[in-house]
Amino acid sequence: MNVYRSPENPIIEPKDVKPSRPDFEVVCAFNAGVTRFNGEVLLLLRVAEVAKSDDPKIARVPIYDHERKEIIIKDFSKDDKNLDFSDSRVIRTPNEKYLTSISHLRIARSKDGIHFTVDEAPTMTSANEYEMFGIEDPRITLIDGTYYINFSCIANLGVTTCLASTKDFTTFERHGVIFLPDNKDVEIFPEKIGGKYYALTRPDSRSYKRREVWIADSPDLLRWGSHRHLFGTRHDKWDSGKVGGSAVPFLTDEGWLEIYHGSDKVHDRYCLGAVLLDKNEPWKMLGRSDNPILEPETDYEIHGFYGNVVFNCGVLNEDGKVKIYYGAADTCMAYAEISLKDILDIVR
Amino acid sequence: MNVYRSPENPIIEPKDVKPSRPDFEVVCAFNAGVTRFNGEVLLLLRVAEVAKSDDPKIARVPIYDHERKEIIIKDFSKDDKNLDFSDSRVIRTPNEKYLTSISHLRIARSKDGIHFTVDEAPTMTSANEYEMFGIEDPRITLIDGTYYINFSCIANLGVTTCLASTKDFTTFERHGVIFLPDNKDVEIFPEKIGGKYYALTRPDSRSYKRREVWIADSPDLLRWGSHRHLFGTRHDKWDSGKVGGSAVPFLTDEGWLEIYHGSDKVHDRYCLGAVLLDKNEPWKMLGRSDNPILEPETDYEIHGFYGNVVFNCGVLNEDGKVKIYYGAADTCMAYAEISLKDILDIVR
Repeated sequence: MNVYRSPENPIIEPKDVKPSRPDFEVVCAFNAGVTRFNGEVLLLLRVAEVAKSDDPKIARVPIYDHERKEIIIKDFSKDDKNLDFSDSRVIRTPNEKYLTSISHLRIARSKDGIHFTVDEAPTMTSANEYEMFGIEDPRITLIDGTYYINFSCIANLGVTTCLASTKDFTTFERHGVIFLPDNKDVEIFPEKIGGKYYALTRPDSRSYKRREVWIADSPDLLRWGSHRHLFGTRHDKWDSGKVGGSAVPFLTDEGWLEIYHGSDKVHDRYCLGAVLLDKNEPWKMLGRSDNPILEPETDYEIHGFYGNVVFNCGVLNEDGKVKIYYGAADTCMAYAEISLKDILDIVR
Repeated sequence: MNVYRSPENPIIEPKDVKPSRPDFEVVCAFNAGVTRFNGEVLLLLRVAEVAKSDDPKIARVPIYDHERKEIIIKDFSKDDKNLDFSDSRVIRTPNEKYLTSISHLRIARSKDGIHFTVDEAPTMTSANEYEMFGIEDPRITLIDGTYYINFSCIANLGVTTCLASTKDFTTFERHGVIFLPDNKDVEIFPEKIGGKYYALTRPDSRSYKRREVWIADSPDLLRWGSHRHLFGTRHDKWDSGKVGGSAVPFLTDEGWLEIYHGSDKVHDRYCLGAVLLDKNEPWKMLGRSDNPILEPETDYEIHGFYGNVVFNCGVLNEDGKVKIYYGAADTCMAYAEISLKDILDIVR
């Protein structure tokens, strides 16, 4: 696969993002939703922050308290033998799991698609009991002049997908929980097909340990059903561990092209692949790439908060190119281009 | 709590049910959906069958093969050290989990509500890839002359909830997957509230290990959204481990009464409790029983395929009594009555 990576990569790093509070530090700016707005490229970044600690023996965890309607800090002693700090992303108590960071969403804009100005303040932050540990990995779908934003909400109740909408990226309307725990990596198609809205979803089966891609339809974007399993993991390939939708699907002459992510069972190394879905019956898969179209190779993709990851929430399909804005090593944003024809050639 | 148990209990046992094939044995007849139909009490039983094995060293597992459209038998050697037979309900391989039995749904009818005639043949059986390991635990909701039946579908893709409907309990229409993995113990309310259908659901969060009750609404019974967390486990009580809706809710002067099930974290002992929901805003819980209204006490509730279980999929609310048809020890059906007033007195 012939991939062009921007020599400016990473195009956005944590240091480019102002913390939301003086006692917070931005550790990741990644997994952005992507759209064009007012002629500019607009990224809706996931910004992960940790609470700074003066005491190296204390981990300070930010949590949204929905009753107090503010972020509170919970302290954990690193000497406490009942606590498990082995994964940098979480702290496990005997009965509970906390995230070490809390994520919000923040806008970045660019005229050239490479050099971005990041907003000084968060765009959307945790606002209810479903968002206790933050909001993550937004996808932006433009339908009839309204930008619909779905995002993962993390709480001790589980991982849900919620929906919001905006026309101007200034005011946002919240529409509640659209997919039950655990479900993330949802992508809403940009137009109705046969009179219905469609979305890719990624339920997580606790009983059978499956994280695979399903498709649903809806009359109103809020209520979803007609669930069908669309595609799964492949035991002998790079996507043997789990798969999920990544970019909002876009229509080509051949059908709907979906850039998805997968990771392997042994190393949990995240790559991007592609599937082609029937234009009129998107629950029918017409083809799938054998190999990744993008995989972690550069230093900024291999090393970071969680290494060996390329992960994507949106692309721009322009000028015969698929312009991929992607999170690298769960830390920063990077940019790559692949010709649309090259991708279609390997998914047919 | 003043509970009347029928002296005829158990009212239906596995030996009362004819196997669906000569090489199968019925091991459980339990967790029936309940309704009145043509003046009779109609139970839609869950019937679990195992494949008989002539060789005690071979476990024979029935699996629905959706490509061949028939049940096939998969043999497992009990000497194989890679296999785990420690739970009577499942066989675990290093990467997969199989159920030792396969369930279908079967009608039983009674004029007096105690003495039942069980149909000779199954009513509904596995019919697609979501039902590979069987269909289970039906709930029946009568709406405008149509009986809607939702049931749990077990497959290696996960545990989903599917919907079917019938007007005559002779022909059934399938409506597909209405809740994504893992979700079971769904109860559809018997009338629209404020112009919408409502259902209780029980998603299973893999990431946060929560099995609790949510509520959703729908325009058409097929597509569900506006998901809200309704009630959870209580760490110091009998329902500390998991909770789920059980009976189809019914309307009282005080609000919607829901008989739910819960089990404790240590012993996984299943009891029934009650919650009262607001008549017009059913996502508001008005009260909840501190203690179980029914708990495993008799021999047939304590000993069986999975002991110390009372589990319920439907009740009849008649003559001031809540008539509870329930599965006992995951093996047989039993009957109990509790006065409606007694239940309302403890949930207010």
